[in-house]
Amino acid sequence: MSPFTGSAARTPEWRHLRLSVDDGVATVTLPRPEKLNALTFGAYADLRDLLAELSRERSVRALVLGGEGRGFCSGGDVDEIIGSTLAMDTAQLLDFNRMTGQVVRALRECPFPVVAAVHGVAAGAGAVLALAADFRVADPSARFAFLFTKVGLSGGDMGAAYLLPRVVGLGHATRLLMLGEPVRAPEAERIGLISELTDEGRAPEAAAALARRLAQGPALAYAQTKALLTAELDMPLAAAVEMDAATQALLMNGEDYAEFHAAFTGKRSPKWRGR
Amino acid sequence: MSPFTGSAARTPEWRHLRLSVDDGVATVTLPRPEKLNALTFGAYADLRDLLAELSRERSVRALVLGGEGRGFCSGGDVDEIIGSTLAMDTAQLLDFNRMTGQVVRALRECPFPVVAAVHGVAAGAGAVLALAADFRVADPSARFAFLFTKVGLSGGDMGAAYLLPRVVGLGHATRLLMLGEPVRAPEAERIGLISELTDEGRAPEAAAALARRLAQGPALAYAQTKALLTAELDMPLAAAVEMDAATQALLMNGEDYAEFHAAFTGKRSPKWRGR
Amino acid sequence: MSPFTGSAARTPEWRHLRLSVDDGVATVTLPRPEKLNALTFGAYADLRDLLAELSRERSVRALVLGGEGRGFCSGGDVDEIIGSTLAMDTAQLLDFNRMTGQVVRALRECPFPVVAAVHGVAAGAGAVLALAADFRVADPSARFAFLFTKVGLSGGDMGAAYLLPRVVGLGHATRLLMLGEPVRAPEAERIGLISELTDEGRAPEAAAALARRLAQGPALAYAQTKALLTAELDMPLAAAVEMDAATQALLMNGEDYAEFHAAFTGKRSPKWRGR
Repeated sequence: MSPFTGSAARTPEWRHLRLSVDDGVATVTLPRPEKLNALTFGAYADLRDLLAELSRERSVRALVLGGEGRGFCSGGDVDEIIGSTLAMDTAQLLDFNRMTGQVVRALRECPFPVVAAVHGVAAGAGAVLALAADFRVADPSARFAFLFTKVGLSGGDMGAAYLLPRVVGLGHATRLLMLGEPVRAPEAERIGLISELTDEGRAPEAAAALARRLAQGPALAYAQTKALLTAELDMPLAAAVEMDAATQALLMNGEDYAEFHAAFTGKRSPKWRGR
Repeated sequence: MSPFTGSAARTPEWRHLRLSVDDGVATVTLPRPEKLNALTFGAYADLRDLLAELSRERSVRALVLGGEGRGFCSGGDVDEIIGSTLAMDTAQLLDFNRMTGQVVRALRECPFPVVAAVHGVAAGAGAVLALAADFRVADPSARFAFLFTKVGLSGGDMGAAYLLPRVVGLGHATRLLMLGEPVRAPEAERIGLISELTDEGRAPEAAAALARRLAQGPALAYAQTKALLTAELDMPLAAAVEMDAATQALLMNGEDYAEFHAAFTGKRSPKWRGR
Repeated sequence: MSPFTGSAARTPEWRHLRLSVDDGVATVTLPRPEKLNALTFGAYADLRDLLAELSRERSVRALVLGGEGRGFCSGGDVDEIIGSTLAMDTAQLLDFNRMTGQVVRALRECPFPVVAAVHGVAAGAGAVLALAADFRVADPSARFAFLFTKVGLSGGDMGAAYLLPRVVGLGHATRLLMLGEPVRAPEAERIGLISELTDEGRAPEAAAALARRLAQGPALAYAQTKALLTAELDMPLAAAVEMDAATQALLMNGEDYAEFHAAFTGKRSPKWRGR
C-alpha cells in the first residue's frame, strides 16, 4: 500500500466488471458475455474508478483487460446507452462523454502497463479501450471496428482521433474512423494495430504471460517507459530529450539498475525489485 | 444554401478546373490532359477559391478530386510556374508559395471529406494534393513522387513535411521527400499512402462510389470525424479527449443519432439526413 | 569554411571515433570492434563535439555513421558506463544523460543528412543513434534492440520515446521500448525502421553511395528538407505550411533552382551547386 493513501475507502465490490489480483497482476474482465460485453454506464464508471484506485494504491504492476465469452467488447449497449442518451440534456451528454474519455485517459496515464487480450469483436468503445492499452494481444478471431459513424456519431470518440493516427498513421486512421468498417486480424497486424498475434483462443493466456513478465521485471522502468511514451507524443524533441535525461538519472539511482550491474558482473540473472 | 451567405457572389465559371455537382458530391477534375494536368497559377487559385466557396455554401457533402487523361497531376508546370517564379521578387515568391499552401489547408479544413482518385502520375504538388485528401483511391498505375528536391527545392512543400510523416512515418517520409523518387502502387499501399487500391482503370468510379456513400450517409458525423482527425494531430491527449466529448454531446442531440436508434429498434435501415 | 567561424579551434584529433572527409562526405566510424563498438564517455563527447564543429564549419554536406567489425554499435559499455554511473551523484547522472541526448539532438538538427550504415547489432544507445539518423541503410544481419529496460532503465532514452513512435507508430514503439527485444532486418523493414535494405555486407558501400549522391546534389534543398521534417513534427499544420512557404521562397532565389530550369530547357542534366 502506498504511503500516499488518505481517507478514501477501497471499493469493496465492483459490480460491473470482474477483478482479480495475483502477484502484482490485475485481471479485469468485462462480464456480460450474453451481450458481447456491451458497456453500460456502470461499466464505464467502474473502469474509471478502478483505474484511479489501482493508480493511487500502487498494488499492481501490470493489468490485463479482457472480455468473457465470444468476444472482447461490442461497445456501448444500444438499449442502455444509446436509448438513455437520447433522453439526456446537454450537460448530461457532456458528463457521459467526459466519463468515457476519462477511462481512456486513465488507461494511458495509469502507472503500469495495460495489456488488452482481444478475441472476437472489439467494436466502438470496445475498440477504443483496446487502442488505449499499451499492448494488444490478439488471436486470429479478433475484429476491430470503430463503428461510431454507423450510429450517426463522430469517429473521434474517447480520444480515438488522437490515438489511432499515432498508432497506424493518418491514412489508415481516416479510413477506419470515417467508415467504421471491421478490420480483421491480418490487416490489424499489418498496419500495426496488433502487438502480438497468438494462436486461436490463446490471447488470454498470452496476455497473462506478458503481464506476469512485466510485473516480475523492472516494473518501475516499464512504468516510466509508458509514462514517457504517453507524454512525449505531446512534446517537442528538445523537451523530450530533457525529460528522458531526468528520468534516466532517476532510475540510475534505483535498485534495479544496480542489480543489473551486480548480476552482470556476477554472471547471474538479475532479481528485479521493480524500483 | 447556408444562412451564413453574405454578399460574395458565386463564381460563375471555373476556368482552370472542371466542376460538376451531383446529389451532394462535387467532382473536380484537373483538365489539362495534354500536360498531364500540370498546375498553373490559375489552377491553384481556382482550387483555393472553389474550396472556400463550397465550404461556406454547404452545398456539397463530399468531393472527388481527379485528373483527366493519362494521370492525376504532374505538379507545377515547368514552363508556366518554374519559369515565371524565376523572375519574381521575394514578396511574390512568398505569395505564390502561400497560395499553394492555402490549397492544402483548405483540403484539410473543408467541412466535407475529400477523395483523391489517383491513376498514373501524382508528382510534386500533385502528390501533395493527393496526400492532403482524406482518402486516396488509386489503381495499380498510380505513381507518387514528391520530386521537389529534383528541381532544387525543399521536399517540405505545401505542408508535405508535416503531413507525410503523419501518414507513413518519419523514416519513409524522409526517404520520399529527400530523394523525390517515385513510389509505385504496391509500395504506396504497403506504407499506408493508399486508402483503397482498385483494379486497373477503376479509381474514378471507386472514388465516386465512396463519395456518394459519404454524401448519402451521416454526413455531419463524417465531417466532424474529419475535423477531429485534422485538429487532434496538433493537440495533446487531454484536450483531444475533451474535444471528442463535446463533439459527441453535440451529435447526440442530432437527428442522425436518433434515427439510428429508431431504425435499430424498428429493425430497418437508417435514413440518414446528414445532420 | 563558413564566414561564421570565430575563435574556436578545430579539434586536431578525435580520439574516440574515426573521421574521414572526402568530397563533402564525412564518414564517422565507431572504432572499438573488439567491444562491438560499445560507447564510452569519450565516444559520446566526441560525437557531440564533432557534430557541432561540422555544423558550424559547413565543410560537409552529408555524413555516414557506421561501426567497425561485426556490428554497428552495442550501446553503452557495461563496464565503463554502467559501472561508473553507479558511483555518480545526481548532478553527474543528469550531465551524462544530457550529453547522450545532445548527441541525438545534434543528429536531428545538424544541417546535413545523416546516413547510418547498419550491420549486425544496433543495441541500446546504438539503436537510438541509428534511429536519429535520417536514413538507416542496413543489411540482412542488422538487429535493432532498444534494450534499456533490460538493464533496469527507461526505454525512453536519448529521445527514443519521442522518435520511435513517429517512425514506426505507437503500438510497435511501445512493444520495442518496453520489452527491449531484438528486431531483425525483415521486421525492421516491414515496420518502417529501415530506409534501404542492402545485400549482405553491402550496407557501408550503399550508405556511402547515398551520402555521395546527397553531397553532390542540391545539398541546400536536402538540408532544408531535413530541417523542415525535424521542425514540423513539433508544429501545427498552419505554421508548417507557412514555414514551407518561406523556405520555398528562399530556395526559389537560390542557384540550384535556376540551374534546374536552365538544364531542363537546355535538355541537359543540372549541375548542382548546393546553394
